[in-house]
Amino acid sequence: MDCTKILDTLKSVIGQADNFVSLHEPTFAGNEWDYVKECLDTGWVSSVGSYVDRFELMLAEFTGVKRAIAVVNGTAALHVCLILAGVESGDEVLLPALTFVATPNALSYCGAIPHFVDSEEATLGLDPHKLADYLTEIAEVRGDECFNKKTGRRIKSVVPMHTYGHPVDLDPLLDLCERFKLVLVEDAAESLGSYYKGKHTGQWGRLSALSFNGNKVITTGGGGAILTNDEELGTLAKHLTTTAKVPHKWEFRHDMVGYNYRMPNINAALGCAQLEQLPGFLQRKRELAENYRQAFVDVDGVRFFSEPEYARSNYWLNALLLDDANCDKRDELLTLTNGSGVMTRPTWTLMHKLPMFNDCPRMDLSIAENLERRLINIPSSSSLGGDRA
Amino acid sequence: MDCTKILDTLKSVIGQADNFVSLHEPTFAGNEWDYVKECLDTGWVSSVGSYVDRFELMLAEFTGVKRAIAVVNGTAALHVCLILAGVESGDEVLLPALTFVATPNALSYCGAIPHFVDSEEATLGLDPHKLADYLTEIAEVRGDECFNKKTGRRIKSVVPMHTYGHPVDLDPLLDLCERFKLVLVEDAAESLGSYYKGKHTGQWGRLSALSFNGNKVITTGGGGAILTNDEELGTLAKHLTTTAKVPHKWEFRHDMVGYNYRMPNINAALGCAQLEQLPGFLQRKRELAENYRQAFVDVDGVRFFSEPEYARSNYWLNALLLDDANCDKRDELLTLTNGSGVMTRPTWTLMHKLPMFNDCPRMDLSIAENLERRLINIPSSSSLGGDRA
Repeated sequence: MDCTKILDTLKSVIGQADNFVSLHEPTFAGNEWDYVKECLDTGWVSSVGSYVDRFELMLAEFTGVKRAIAVVNGTAALHVCLILAGVESGDEVLLPALTFVATPNALSYCGAIPHFVDSEEATLGLDPHKLADYLTEIAEVRGDECFNKKTGRRIKSVVPMHTYGHPVDLDPLLDLCERFKLVLVEDAAESLGSYYKGKHTGQWGRLSALSFNGNKVITTGGGGAILTNDEELGTLAKHLTTTAKVPHKWEFRHDMVGYNYRMPNINAALGCAQLEQLPGFLQRKRELAENYRQAFVDVDGVRFFSEPEYARSNYWLNALLLDDANCDKRDELLTLTNGSGVMTRPTWTLMHKLPMFNDCPRMDLSIAENLERRLINIPSSSSLGGDRA
Repeated sequence: MDCTKILDTLKSVIGQADNFVSLHEPTFAGNEWDYVKECLDTGWVSSVGSYVDRFELMLAEFTGVKRAIAVVNGTAALHVCLILAGVESGDEVLLPALTFVATPNALSYCGAIPHFVDSEEATLGLDPHKLADYLTEIAEVRGDECFNKKTGRRIKSVVPMHTYGHPVDLDPLLDLCERFKLVLVEDAAESLGSYYKGKHTGQWGRLSALSFNGNKVITTGGGGAILTNDEELGTLAKHLTTTAKVPHKWEFRHDMVGYNYRMPNINAALGCAQLEQLPGFLQRKRELAENYRQAFVDVDGVRFFSEPEYARSNYWLNALLLDDANCDKRDELLTLTNGSGVMTRPTWTLMHKLPMFNDCPRMDLSIAENLERRLINIPSSSSLGGDRA
């Protein structure tokens, strides 16, 4: 594998930039300033305001769910999804070892114990078949609940994460949830604009979490959303994320321990303007991915990761997979590219290797460990796609 | 007590407005546009950006502490303050029953049990003398720790809240903390710009929390900050609020369960512009308070609440105190004023009356219960102060 050849191929796609080319930069080419300025001019910047309602309606429409609730970030969204999925202190929750730290962190806030699952190379996400075999061995269903026979703890939920925007294989995962009485919560933080068999990700879980961090497909500065098709859960999610205040003409009364997780109006204003442009962003991101795919066809020792066949991915972060034989050259490639003005990153350190999750239960993670050595993210901003002649 | 007379007096101070006069509205009369637009123009809207650093430095300078860490809101700030104060699951923490729900909520996130304390009429805040008597009765110090003799639980910390911006009497409270080995954490959410004996609130606790919600003296849309004079705790607070990521040129490694609590750059940009105007806001708010004070001198049955003698308050929310004999007219006054275009509010329902905190330990709360019946907040925006001729 020739690292210089890979760098040249990257440059052939993204162009010769004067500046450092980031992994993912936002584009503000729409109504961002108008909407934000309106917030400032009217004084409605904070927790109540019309852009929050509008952003929630736009999100629900785009993703095809009944309810979307805007919150401060994806971690907060996932935290509330887990609470409303019934995850309680002492429960185990299944999640991929190959994910961003927000997934197990959100579990920890509930007092739950992460139980790490292996990934599959075709999706970079949780492997539902390997998980089914594993659960058959270690789990037992009693009544409507699943228990870990080894630890005695309840296994309440499974939280797949759609890695870099590529949808997990949801159908077999849904079968497994049915069989083992697990609540499906989708960590869709990276997959706004990604579809599984024609339906948007985030529609499949009882609840799902989106993120609009600065590096995501669209951004609100910081932000996230809870998606659900259950009206009652949607109403409860809104209540829980707005300090659980009971409506009254003047009384301050709250009926449960709530959270201050609401998205400020000024951030939602940004979100509305961004969401208007999302179809264009997605198109350019797919064009960029196609350009990468073609450019890397003839490059030895590495391949461009393409969406699973059942999926239409947002290609949030594009990824190269080094061949097994070349994974010892990963750091050399990272050093060369980052030193040459092209930002690249390895994937996350697997979660079970972090000190706070070291002792958590886990299955065989050999595929995730293999992927960790081979994955490299490459520049993915929508501004790099489209016609760059 | 004549409710119409009170309404007329309010109107004599705030002027005859065409629109409904809110309790507290922000003023954007400085560099808000320029700074926010710069974020959009440069693409730096999110979790990394120069305005976050600048806002933190400005905050530290204004409040006179060594470190200020900007976060998503005051609740998040208080949560992290409590973690870093050493509050653990099963601990009791002392706090006023007369506070906003964020105070006991933040405790609950740590698994701690709120233990409610009475207030004093001179400050509207926690009564350190009554608390000292109470602790002498129910608490015992063993080694460096304090225990509740009745419940057996450790009492780790005391969290005073500077109600409506009026500083609690901190000197006797610090004596009590010394005597009973309690960590002082200030809930200074409402008291940016308030001074106790010449020093800014938030300097006295080991850690302190500020809020910049839309209704506060300055706003960032949603936001808060952690203050501390302990450099080490400041560094740890920054680490904990930014997912506990270990710095590395490309590796994603996290060394503890962290939080996604960082303030986005676009919100910090707003904060910088607002903080530049804070001295002017404070001056106009004091002028408004003085106008109210003078106007209500001759109104029977009610008095305007003035800062304690040792304090210089930001007068965040101005308050009227009904005489004891008139507290049955509170709702009549609320109905009349809110129906006449002048927003007024009662104080918060006392925390021990909320269902989730019903069973929490508490001392005699007779003063707080009396204040709850008598307090009414009145319009307090800085734009209502100054020369309105």
